[in-house]
Amino acid sequence: MSQYVRVGIEALQGFLSAVFERRGFSAPDAGFIAETLIDADRRGIASHGMQRMAMYDHKLRHGMIDPAAQVSVVSDIKACAVLDGHSGMGQLISRDAMKLAITKAQEHGIGVVSVRDSNHFGTAGYWARMAANQGLIGVAMTNSNPLTAPTHAGLPALGSNPIAFAVGQGDDQFVYDAATSTVSLGKIEVLVKLGEPIAGDWAVDEHGAAEHDSARMMGKISASPRIGGLTPLGGSGEMNAGYKGYGLNMIVEILTGILSGGVLSWDMKGQHICHCFAAIDLEAFGGAQLIGERVAELSARLRALPSVDGHPVLVAGDKEREAAQNNEDSIPVDAATFRQLITIGERANVSVPQTWHSNQYEGPAQ
Amino acid sequence: MSQYVRVGIEALQGFLSAVFERRGFSAPDAGFIAETLIDADRRGIASHGMQRMAMYDHKLRHGMIDPAAQVSVVSDIKACAVLDGHSGMGQLISRDAMKLAITKAQEHGIGVVSVRDSNHFGTAGYWARMAANQGLIGVAMTNSNPLTAPTHAGLPALGSNPIAFAVGQGDDQFVYDAATSTVSLGKIEVLVKLGEPIAGDWAVDEHGAAEHDSARMMGKISASPRIGGLTPLGGSGEMNAGYKGYGLNMIVEILTGILSGGVLSWDMKGQHICHCFAAIDLEAFGGAQLIGERVAELSARLRALPSVDGHPVLVAGDKEREAAQNNEDSIPVDAATFRQLITIGERANVSVPQTWHSNQYEGPAQ
Repeated sequence: MSQYVRVGIEALQGFLSAVFERRGFSAPDAGFIAETLIDADRRGIASHGMQRMAMYDHKLRHGMIDPAAQVSVVSDIKACAVLDGHSGMGQLISRDAMKLAITKAQEHGIGVVSVRDSNHFGTAGYWARMAANQGLIGVAMTNSNPLTAPTHAGLPALGSNPIAFAVGQGDDQFVYDAATSTVSLGKIEVLVKLGEPIAGDWAVDEHGAAEHDSARMMGKISASPRIGGLTPLGGSGEMNAGYKGYGLNMIVEILTGILSGGVLSWDMKGQHICHCFAAIDLEAFGGAQLIGERVAELSARLRALPSVDGHPVLVAGDKEREAAQNNEDSIPVDAATFRQLITIGERANVSVPQTWHSNQYEGPAQ
Repeated sequence: MSQYVRVGIEALQGFLSAVFERRGFSAPDAGFIAETLIDADRRGIASHGMQRMAMYDHKLRHGMIDPAAQVSVVSDIKACAVLDGHSGMGQLISRDAMKLAITKAQEHGIGVVSVRDSNHFGTAGYWARMAANQGLIGVAMTNSNPLTAPTHAGLPALGSNPIAFAVGQGDDQFVYDAATSTVSLGKIEVLVKLGEPIAGDWAVDEHGAAEHDSARMMGKISASPRIGGLTPLGGSGEMNAGYKGYGLNMIVEILTGILSGGVLSWDMKGQHICHCFAAIDLEAFGGAQLIGERVAELSARLRALPSVDGHPVLVAGDKEREAAQNNEDSIPVDAATFRQLITIGERANVSVPQTWHSNQYEGPAQ
């Protein structure tokens, strides 16, 4: 088990903003990017928070993300649009794209915006929640590096291709955010760090056999060419309907890479990522308040179901909301990532917050 | 293994149309309903073809489906609408609803129509293909009787809640159509008929334990109150991410039962089913031809992947298209269902086609 440090959010927000400003973003944009990353850690999605700073910093320093890129409109016809991100920062492009989807939804009832040539946009759920927070249904998807092996194949031809869907407000906001692979690669990375095997039907080798060695899996999926892969949701083969997860994964590929005229996961090397955003205005369906109440009512009935195994019956978004309540002023950052942050700061000539010098390692993360 | 009969489509179309006319539908509507059911069998989806005739006939004779029902518009605002089916025939309501979604997509770029108080609408894929055949993306969903147990629960609080998505034309039409449970209840029914156990992680009992006895599972899911349930896609517990299938299932519940102001799967007794249909015009995305070509290109690359286990790598829709090619003039109907059809005909005072008297049982169905 790795140790972690509790990092105060206010100081961290200032530090990250300064780093992003140093890398070429305006102060408001830098602040916004920082906020989205801290939000992931607050909600317990550690794979998409501080742990990704090294990746963003690397890409910014090597010109793979262009901080000066301006989003351009490829087409804009009634409720639908295609945007080109010109290899800019995924979070800024996604903010523009979801704003446009929301504007279109307010005008037409629904809006769909497909995006090409973006970069990693953080959690898909952040963008779906952006619409939900304004009383709409929000949907967000992205393709990614090739990671998922289609049913009966031993090569990763498809991305992890998550789908996010959010509706409602407050403590009953429904927030679904999940890769269409059984797990995201981040879960395998965690097992590698912990030296633990893969217990579930999460990955296959190049022969289609279940892969239970986490380090070997990471080695193969990072090789050139990549071999093996994550299983689609439903697992390997057809026994537990892995072809369903494979099909859902391909739907995401169609709505992102294909509709936008962009690069497919298969052909991707960490850049030129494609997204799709949709927003649905709830006016025709009785209004945001009524729909929020009906979602809350169904959620309450589900949560009240007796548990069969001691784990409570939850609704999508519950775990992350509870984490956010526990991380209101500070977030847990694992020791290795904390040291990375200090290096990133030094490299950007941004001084680390005063309080960090007294941060104590507090033992295993939750 | 049960035996099957090959039934000629032309004669069957006439027979079914006559039965539905006798149950109160106009000749064109009766013909359309018959066509949708034969289409399911042609495409190898036996669970949704002739096998369902007994259910439809029962509901029509007992007033649970109203052949005279007229669809009414609950709300119609820009690209979105809610329709009320007034307990009419699901296929006729769905045809109206998808037509409206397509019209809205042609006007606004995209259309979304949520429907309440309908009945079983056959395969979800039929409705998604209706839009794809006209050069749009088609999406269709429905809630259902309560069949799926949420993660960590031992009661079926949610429906099988399938999602269908179709795009493209001809031999490369992508057609995804799948329950968000690991399997549909139809697959368990088939095992019961065959006297075979449940091999996969498809069902749980009321204690959340894996249920491998197909007959016992059917008994419990049909009891009053129902207990146990199908697992959500991803299986029981959290090991293989069953909470993802559970979340997808709930998204369908939100877009159908909740958006339409209708009845939730949980509260359903085979009636008042709710659907959701969407259509996306492809003009803003480069047009139907270009998108069809890009989908076909990705599909061809996927199909060309080497198989790891002797089963070819397929794309959603391939299996059903191949079956349709094999069933151009006739469909296989299992012996028990064939006898049901004859009973249904006698009861409706519709004479069975001349050719049926010479039909020979041809051994186990594919």
